[in-house]
Amino acid sequence: MTMRVLTSELGHHAGEGVSLSGWVHRVRELPAVTFVVLRDRSGLAQLVLREPTRREQVRRLAEETVVTARGAAVANPAAPGGVEVVDPVVDVLGPAQPPPVELWRPALSVSLPTLLDHAAVTLRHPARAAVFRMAAASVAGFRATLDAAGFTEVTTPKIVAAATESGATVFGLDYFGRPAFLAQSPQFYKQMMVGVFERVYETGPVFRAEPHDTARHLASYTSLDAELGFIDDHRDVLVVLRDVVAGMLDWIRTRVADYERALAEPLPDVPAEMPSLHFADAQRLIAEGTGVDPSGEPDLSPAHERWLGEWARREHGSDFVVVTGYPMAKRPFYTHPQPGRPEYSNSFDLLFRGLELVTGGQRLHRYADYLAALAARGESPEPYAGYLEAFRHGMPPHGGFAIGLERWVARLTGASNVREVTLFPRDLQRLSP
Amino acid sequence: MTMRVLTSELGHHAGEGVSLSGWVHRVRELPAVTFVVLRDRSGLAQLVLREPTRREQVRRLAEETVVTARGAAVANPAAPGGVEVVDPVVDVLGPAQPPPVELWRPALSVSLPTLLDHAAVTLRHPARAAVFRMAAASVAGFRATLDAAGFTEVTTPKIVAAATESGATVFGLDYFGRPAFLAQSPQFYKQMMVGVFERVYETGPVFRAEPHDTARHLASYTSLDAELGFIDDHRDVLVVLRDVVAGMLDWIRTRVADYERALAEPLPDVPAEMPSLHFADAQRLIAEGTGVDPSGEPDLSPAHERWLGEWARREHGSDFVVVTGYPMAKRPFYTHPQPGRPEYSNSFDLLFRGLELVTGGQRLHRYADYLAALAARGESPEPYAGYLEAFRHGMPPHGGFAIGLERWVARLTGASNVREVTLFPRDLQRLSP
Repeated sequence: MTMRVLTSELGHHAGEGVSLSGWVHRVRELPAVTFVVLRDRSGLAQLVLREPTRREQVRRLAEETVVTARGAAVANPAAPGGVEVVDPVVDVLGPAQPPPVELWRPALSVSLPTLLDHAAVTLRHPARAAVFRMAAASVAGFRATLDAAGFTEVTTPKIVAAATESGATVFGLDYFGRPAFLAQSPQFYKQMMVGVFERVYETGPVFRAEPHDTARHLASYTSLDAELGFIDDHRDVLVVLRDVVAGMLDWIRTRVADYERALAEPLPDVPAEMPSLHFADAQRLIAEGTGVDPSGEPDLSPAHERWLGEWARREHGSDFVVVTGYPMAKRPFYTHPQPGRPEYSNSFDLLFRGLELVTGGQRLHRYADYLAALAARGESPEPYAGYLEAFRHGMPPHGGFAIGLERWVARLTGASNVREVTLFPRDLQRLSP
Repeated sequence: MTMRVLTSELGHHAGEGVSLSGWVHRVRELPAVTFVVLRDRSGLAQLVLREPTRREQVRRLAEETVVTARGAAVANPAAPGGVEVVDPVVDVLGPAQPPPVELWRPALSVSLPTLLDHAAVTLRHPARAAVFRMAAASVAGFRATLDAAGFTEVTTPKIVAAATESGATVFGLDYFGRPAFLAQSPQFYKQMMVGVFERVYETGPVFRAEPHDTARHLASYTSLDAELGFIDDHRDVLVVLRDVVAGMLDWIRTRVADYERALAEPLPDVPAEMPSLHFADAQRLIAEGTGVDPSGEPDLSPAHERWLGEWARREHGSDFVVVTGYPMAKRPFYTHPQPGRPEYSNSFDLLFRGLELVTGGQRLHRYADYLAALAARGESPEPYAGYLEAFRHGMPPHGGFAIGLERWVARLTGASNVREVTLFPRDLQRLSP
């Protein structure tokens, strides 16, 4: 039996007998010839059938039928890849009914509900598949960059006894008769693991019972989390973050052959140092630039994030801009205050093309500081006992960040809704497929 | 300021001024000298203090205090790594209270509840940390092997509308007022994604509401899942599995400097072809070997798995043995029957040192076969609509497997309880830390 050749390799096999396997992407009948475009994981290839009984056989194949085609590979400059397969014997491996959408069209112009309801089929569209290859390469680039920097991967619990962030957006669970929650982030555990490995990362699902039906929120998303010890402050974290983002882009460029298919604009470049400004300076710039003074607000509005994105593009030629020093009031209790300006924090957001992509910063690391921070918020340390034990027994100055994978891919591809770049999204309405 | 040197690099810095950072692993006072063992992510180093005020300073440091020590690196054949740091200036970065266990002892001889209750501290023990470096390397080796074989990583939902396997062990969830479940496996989704990428894998949490308090069950564990299309049958899946297991071991050997610290016996070798036998033949062997005939039983008991593990060791010199052809009766509805012997299946288990480590096999791939399989079990296809759509629209013959990460690490290390090799285990009793 002939070894299978991938469509991407067909160009090297002109003049040979080959066996291709894949999906019938399209059948086109002309008076004297039938063309079949075959799709496999690597691309498309053209089958040309002139022999009447073979034409008759493929004429009846619904698109998406899975076949093996054995025939002669023949050079033809007009064929995709320069080689086509002439008069192959076509065997059906997996029969198919006609698909609910026309996958052979260059762009899949269907509504978002159709796209998601029929994910098992619509994900097969080459431009859709390229989006998720980019997502996979991004995660791999994240890991590879951190592996090279001495980080260790960890696997932390997704079912927890206490909510990490705010109680409002947490999914409750019946855990063998006890109340429990789905983890909103690996924050506490990655910090604890800094006490073991100094530098850790995790790539995994986090859960938010988001009651808002917006284009940028999901009930579950993939969080790319990193945390590192022995830092001076949050600026050391930003150095790692810069390299991670550059690594994610490198992996897309070098590992996804057809990534440009998924993009609305070119992949960004990451400056050697990302432009960075303090929250207070950002507010002043926004006041000067827009005529509306946001000072006193404890956070940036989405409109102001967009404005800063445009500013960074204009002034620094950068798609990325870091805002540091967010007010303590809106940051979680483990946030490290800014030395000398304790109303501000050593935290940051990274905005990518005007959207918050990453949140991070320096954390508290002394046990006494945790007790004080919880007391100041009127919280008991008791629910946090397992977490606080790490600080009671020696922790280095540390910090970290979390990248929202789907937001990253949405921003890269220009998708207006994060659901478009999630394989099987979960939100207020959607629980299947 | 002197750049930080890791303890593992200290051997290259004899004669220089160095700066080490880490945890005070142990303080030993002798009449004329104080020794401090410093632990960082790479190992241990010895600080030697003779100068009285410096001795006085470190004498007060509790173990686990995080410090930076700056001093002269001096060759001393008696020191770990051949170099020690003499009379350093020691600055405290993170104060500590004395730890609840003696981390400096070569073995951490504490009860399982103590080990787990104080995970934030006990995980710092070098032999414990080595276990989880092995786990991380195993996952990385799994991914690297599959990346090299043209697989694409996918990220599938952990909140689902229908239970995958059996309804008995599923966690229920209030999903915005609707019932939902935590995913027991990515099975349905990885199959759907074979329709997109042909070859996919996922490494992530799965959830089982295990009502049994056994040494090998967890309420949540890490499943290393792979699925591939265009196979002839389950034997093609086993070829990939063999390479994956070998890759996991290679990564441990090459990326974890101190893996031997975590092992009770040497790392296994993976035969070029793992010994494999049919379920019916396994039962016959067991009957001959034990005098008790298990034929008629639809599964292997744990005792019989152990017996087969010993048989494989004895007859084939292998720690691994594959059992194929499990009866259809005990396998899920998507299992492909064995051609010509439809009471058996094209499924397999891989036993590692007598314990089931991997389950896999060939799946059904024709829509009509799915409808028939569900009808035969009296199930409606309706709850599976999003999954079945993949098969309605063309799927290749395919199969895959799932490796339980924690069982793998338990078997490698000789841990008698899978909880020992889980960072923060979840079970019937345990929900924290």
